[in-house]
Parts: sequence; structure tokens; C-alpha cells
Amino acid sequence: MDTAGGLLLLRRMRLMAFSVGLDRVVEPAGVLPQAAWRLDPRPPIAADEVRIRAERLNLDAASFRQLSEKHGGDGAAVRSEVLEIVRTRGKMHNPVTGSGGMLIGVVEEVGAASPLAVKPGDRVATLVSLTLTPLEITDDLQRWDGRSEQVPAEGAAILFGRSVVGVLPADLPPELALAVYDVCGAPALTDRVVRQYGRTGVTVAVLGGAGKSGSLALTAARLAGARTAGVVVNESERATLSGAGLADVVAVADARDPVEVSRTVTEALGGPATVTVVCVDVPGCEHGAILSTADGGTVIFFSMATSFPAAALGAEGLAADVTMLIGNGYVPGHAAFAVDLVRRVPAVRALFEARLAGH
Amino acid sequence: MDTAGGLLLLRRMRLMAFSVGLDRVVEPAGVLPQAAWRLDPRPPIAADEVRIRAERLNLDAASFRQLSEKHGGDGAAVRSEVLEIVRTRGKMHNPVTGSGGMLIGVVEEVGAASPLAVKPGDRVATLVSLTLTPLEITDDLQRWDGRSEQVPAEGAAILFGRSVVGVLPADLPPELALAVYDVCGAPALTDRVVRQYGRTGVTVAVLGGAGKSGSLALTAARLAGARTAGVVVNESERATLSGAGLADVVAVADARDPVEVSRTVTEALGGPATVTVVCVDVPGCEHGAILSTADGGTVIFFSMATSFPAAALGAEGLAADVTMLIGNGYVPGHAAFAVDLVRRVPAVRALFEARLAGH
Repeated sequence: MDTAGGLLLLRRMRLMAFSVGLDRVVEPAGVLPQAAWRLDPRPPIAADEVRIRAERLNLDAASFRQLSEKHGGDGAAVRSEVLEIVRTRGKMHNPVTGSGGMLIGVVEEVGAASPLAVKPGDRVATLVSLTLTPLEITDDLQRWDGRSEQVPAEGAAILFGRSVVGVLPADLPPELALAVYDVCGAPALTDRVVRQYGRTGVTVAVLGGAGKSGSLALTAARLAGARTAGVVVNESERATLSGAGLADVVAVADARDPVEVSRTVTEALGGPATVTVVCVDVPGCEHGAILSTADGGTVIFFSMATSFPAAALGAEGLAADVTMLIGNGYVPGHAAFAVDLVRRVPAVRALFEARLAGH
Repeated sequence: MDTAGGLLLLRRMRLMAFSVGLDRVVEPAGVLPQAAWRLDPRPPIAADEVRIRAERLNLDAASFRQLSEKHGGDGAAVRSEVLEIVRTRGKMHNPVTGSGGMLIGVVEEVGAASPLAVKPGDRVATLVSLTLTPLEITDDLQRWDGRSEQVPAEGAAILFGRSVVGVLPADLPPELALAVYDVCGAPALTDRVVRQYGRTGVTVAVLGGAGKSGSLALTAARLAGARTAGVVVNESERATLSGAGLADVVAVADARDPVEVSRTVTEALGGPATVTVVCVDVPGCEHGAILSTADGGTVIFFSMATSFPAAALGAEGLAADVTMLIGNGYVPGHAAFAVDLVRRVPAVRALFEARLAGH
């Protein structure tokens, strides 16, 4: 490479380094914000940053479940721990589960060099994880009872240049849009994987099919032409998902029991699935998903409770020729794709609304 | 499904449950052997099992590094801890890294119903992880100094029906074959992914290119038609890999530093890589690999030190449209493919031999 090319490249790299938020990393130095133990959440912004006045956090399901179980459902204790995490780390990054969530709020200030398509006053949802979003909370979460993933909050959050943010659609309540955005990578990636097979007869099993990401993944799979099975944990979820009519077959199994779950999927679809999507937010679902998948098939892991070594060594130990994908929360156009599913399929919208209402 | 079909299916499922070693799981009940805390390693075999007289274990690199660093290089302490792990768990399954390794030995007894193509007296390598292989050690590892991944050992190991085992090739020393088999999933999957792009101009960056899996991945990528860059940790490894001539470009970078590693890859290949292969056995390489990869590209994670949430949330946080694969250690034909590479490319063989000789 010649000198001019080298200088150009170095300038690009400096810009990249800047725009991913390295200047907000307090410790350890040099890592990206998501890997950092602590971020600097102070409100004044740099030229490529955006500051958002937070209105509501949506905690990641695995994170909320871990906190709730740790404190035996004591909401006040859960609230104290969330406040303590944010105070200590400068972000809502659960140190046990490694996961975060998202937030909605109103754009307060946009740096002169920000590439994001937002302006002050826009109501937005952040589509990057809270694990890398500098956050300061100013109301001690007084309006939150600690018993739900949806956390009313006041404070300030920072977005970097290289980020993803969605203006909230005018035709959906903000809580609904946030809940959809939170899992919008799942339907988009499921759609892509099913279409990549490029043939008829593709079958898709979704473990945790009655949940948010699960119901959207089922819907996307069916619209992409697959025959689908939703696997759920109990009779109540079976009734919900069957009633919604979002899967061709609904069956009950414990996703942590590999023999039970693979028998259930094989019976439901007449053979192992072409694609198995894991949307169950508890540890230990890797082996059941692998055993449920046909040779040449694909497992998409969307649960943050997935163990990398359990998946890698499990497939090897089972001599399973399956492609295993780490569910990337970013696919171009994912937010619009998910919102479109909710608009087109009333049963999905009804499922989300019931969940938001606490049913 | 009719009753006859149901009964047939149930019989198939029982057979499967049996052949994956459920009867060897002591606790917790119902999980697969890899997920179990403790296995029953007693030597008498069931009808579909095979017993192997162990000769040598090959510890997983991440596991050996963790043990060695924990004990500050004290070989006797490392040996004691390995013995304690095997005594406690009935398998060599490092509880910190979650990884194991492989072994070579001689087939001692083959159950009447075993589907594996081996007979008593065959010298074999197990191609499934030690994390799911029942193992009893009878010599207290007296011939091992605790300072190398290669562990001379006496004892008995059990293989289940659904397993993978390779008879050692007659033209390669067993230590060499074992070292190659240990990482043989990496070149086979790299080959498959490069060929799936089905076009010219594919570039491949291998982080940890001078190691075992890394040098084989580089070789497979080049033979599949890609232009390759090997990223290594220091000048000594650069000299080794450059001397071997296995990569089109060799560059030095700390794979844990995302900005440095992505700058290095971009400079080496004239742009981000189509495929980035992570073969560095230390935590924290996820973000550098993602930033090094072009939109529409693929990251293959082969390191057991990979963090699932760091990869998933990192890609989302960087708005990176990359496919992220959990490196499956099993690809049909992987062992023969890797041995073929070693036979065809003398420089790869020389690298492995130097590593085995402790250089």
C-alpha cells in the first residue's frame, strides 16, 4: 500500500474507532463498549454522538429472569440491584447473564457529525443492546415495581455514530414497538435462513414458540414458505399458541431435555427440522436443538443463555452435521421487517399486547 | 401418526437415547454426557459401546492454558488438578473453560451392537471431545510432567454408539495424527464456507494463523481458492508462519484489540475479510473478528474461549451484517480431509512436527 492509501486507511480507522464509542470506555481501556466493565455515561456529547432522554427500559428476558429468581421475586431488591448495576457500570449490563435490553426515549441532542437519521424531539427506540449504551438514571426507578421487564425510567442514554436507532412508528403504541424491536433480529434472520435453503419442504421448529422472539420467528418462517412447529413449555402456552394459530403444530416439551425435545419435534414434523430456532431464555437447550435438527440443517441460537462450548462440543459429540448460527441481533431492515409482521398478522400483535398487559 | 409409526419412532428414539450415552450419566440425570457434571467411567461396556485402552490424552489448548496459568506453570500442580478433575467428573472436562481434548489408544473391546468400524487391537483416536468421554486413569499420570498438552496416560475410555473415531493412519506418527485430528473440524468447515461463497475474490483472515487449527484453516482456505492473511501474536510466530509460506500475507496484532486487529486485517487484504476464522484460544477476540469482516461475510469461531453473548451483542452493537458460526467440530469426512492436507502440504506437516517437538 502506498503512503497516501495508508494515510487514508488510518483516517478511516480512526473514524471507526471514534464512532464505536471507544472514548466512553473507562475500564479496561482499549476494548469496545460492550466488552467494557465500566462506561462513562456523562450527558455532554461528542460530535458524532446522540443523547436520548430515557423514558422506558426493556430488560432482556434472560437478565430479568436471573435477577428475579436471585431475589425470589422481591421487586424492591430487583430494583436496587438494577440501580446498582447502572451506577457501577455506567450501563445496564447484567454481569451474570452478560445481557442487557433496549430503551425508548426522546432525542435530546444530536452531535454535528452524527450519521444517525434522527432529530431532537423524535421518539425513538435504541436497537443496540443496553450492554454497550452509556446510561445514567436520575429517578431511582421510582415508578418501577421490579416485577416486569418493562422499566419506566428517567435519565440520559448515549448513542455512538456506528449505532442503530429506530424512530417509533406512529401507528403502534411505544411499548408494543419497543417489545417488537427488542427481538426484531430473530424474524429477519429466520426469514433469511429459510429462504437460503431455496426449496420447498423446509421445516422449522421454534423452541419457545409462544414468546416474543419465538412467535415472530414462527410467523417469519411460515411467510417464507416453511412448515412450522412451535415447542412450548406447558399446557397454558400450548393453548395460547394454538389459539393464535401461528404454527402448523404446537407441542409441549422441556427444551432442556434433549431426548424429549427431539422426540417432540420429530413427531410434530414427521422428521427432524431443517431449521431449529432456539428462543428459550434458560441454559441447557443446546443439545436438544442439535438433536432436533436434520443433517445439513441449521440451528439458530437466539437465547443469551446459550453456552458456546456446549453447542460446539455437543454437535461434535453427537456427530451432527448441522450449521450453528450465533443469532446476530442485526440484519439490515430488521426493525421494519418485524413491525411489518405485526401489522400484517393480527394474532402476533394480539400475543404481544396480551404479554404487555401481563396476561 | 398411526400407532405402528408411533411405535417405530419410539423405538428409534430409545435407540438414539441409548447410543448417545445417557446410561453413563450420573448427575444431573437426563442430560447428555457432555452437559453432565459426572459420568460413570467403569470399564464394563454395554452392547453398543467400545472400550479403549488409553495411551495419550491431548488436552484442549484453552484448557491447558487455563490450568497452566492458574498454577503459574507448576507442572506437578497441573497434573494433580487434571487427576482430580477426572476422578471427580469421570471425564477430563475442565470446569472453567468447559473444554476437554481427545485421546489415542488401542481398542480393547467392541460391544456386539456397536456401529463403529473398529476392532480390538486397532490403534485409534477419538474424534469426540473428552468432555463427553467416560475416562478412568490408572497410572496417576506418572509419565507426564504437567508442562505440555500431550499427556501420556494409562486407563480406560468408553465410546458410545453415536460417536466418531478414527483409525490412525499408518504413514503418520500417532502423536502427529492426534494433533491433526484434534483440530480437523476447522479446515473442513473453512473449506465448506469458502466454497459456499461460490465466487472468485474471496479473502480469508485467520486469527491465530500459526497454531494448529489456524495453519490448517489457512491451508484449506488457500486450496479452496481464497487469498489469505494469517494474523499472529508476535514476531516469532510471524517468522514461523512466513517461513512456512502458508498465507499470502502474515501480520502481527493482538486479537483482543478490536481496533488493532481490524486495521491489520484491512491493511493485509486491502479491505475487510470475506471470512474471518478465529483460532486464538484466549477470551475477548469476538469484536475484533466482527470488525475485521466485510458486510455479508462470515465469522467462524473455533476457539472454546468464545463468549456467546459477546459475539451476539457485539455484532448487534456494531450494526455488523455478518454470519457468525459456532465452529462445529464435526463435518463429515473431516479427519480424512485434514490428514490429506498434512500429506499434500509439507510445510503444514513441518509446523505440526515442530510444535510437537516443543519448538
